[in-house]
Amino acid sequence: MTETDVVNFCMLTGNWLELHSNVEHAKSSLYGQRLVQGSLVFAIVNAMIPFDSSVLAAFYGCDKLRFLRPTFINDTLWARTEIIDLKDHDERHGVVTSKLEGINQRDETVLRCEFSLLIRKSRLDRPGEPAKIRAAHDKTQGQSA
Amino acid sequence: MTETDVVNFCMLTGNWLELHSNVEHAKSSLYGQRLVQGSLVFAIVNAMIPFDSSVLAAFYGCDKLRFLRPTFINDTLWARTEIIDLKDHDERHGVVTSKLEGINQRDETVLRCEFSLLIRKSRLDRPGEPAKIRAAHDKTQGQSA
Repeated sequence: MTETDVVNFCMLTGNWLELHSNVEHAKSSLYGQRLVQGSLVFAIVNAMIPFDSSVLAAFYGCDKLRFLRPTFINDTLWARTEIIDLKDHDERHGVVTSKLEGINQRDETVLRCEFSLLIRKSRLDRPGEPAKIRAAHDKTQGQSA
Repeated sequence: MTETDVVNFCMLTGNWLELHSNVEHAKSSLYGQRLVQGSLVFAIVNAMIPFDSSVLAAFYGCDKLRFLRPTFINDTLWARTEIIDLKDHDERHGVVTSKLEGINQRDETVLRCEFSLLIRKSRLDRPGEPAKIRAAHDKTQGQSA
C-alpha cells in the first residue's frame, strides 16, 4: 500500500478525510501517522483473490468485516481465503461464502470477514473471443479448453 | 459512477475481472452489461457520509453488507445513514454503528449494511493549524471554535 494508492483513492472517492490525507493532523491521531483507508484495504485484499470470470456472476455481500489492526503507508498485504459455505440461490446461481483475511508483513491479521459471491452453475466459455484466438487456444490446449 | 471510475478502480486494485472490464464478456453475463465493482460502490457510498475529522479515529468494521441491486455505468448514487447503536470501547473511544444505504436514481436500494466507526471521546482541535489561520478563524467564529 503506497502513498500513491492512498492519494489516488482520496481522488477516486472524493473523500479527503484528514486521517488519510493530512500528515500534521495524523500526527495527533490514534496511531500517530496516516492510515490507509479501510475501504481501500478491503478492496485490495479481495481483489487479490484469483476469481474465475467464467463462473463469477456478482458480489453478493460481506459479513463480520473487522479491521483488527491499522494499515500504514508502505505496508505489504497478503490475502488468505477459505471456502466455508455453499448455498443454493436460484436455478442458475449459488452463493459461495469464504473466510477472507488480509495479513501484513508483520504477520498481523489486519482485516477479517466472510465474503460472499454469486456464482453461475454453468460456465461462460470466453464469450466474444475471436475465432482465430479460439482456434489457436484449442490447438494449444487440446480440444477441451 | 462513470466508466472512468470503473476503469480507474481496475487500475488501482490491479483486478481486471471481465465482469467489469470486458464489454463482450459482460454482454453474456447476468445483467448483460458491465457492472460497477461492489467494492467501489461500497467505498463511494460510505465516502459520501460527512465524517467529522475531529472525532473519527478509525474504520471499525461492517456487518450484513448486501448488494441488493446491480450498479451500472452512469448510475448516480446517493447515501442515507442513520445511527442505530452507540457502544463504549475503551477509555478514549466508543464505537458508533450506522445503518448505511446506497440508493440510485431509480430509487432502488443497491447496498445496505451496518457500518461501524471508532470515535474519539475528546476532539482533536485542528492539530497542526498555523497560528495565523487559527487567529483568523477565531476572529470570524468568535473565541469558541
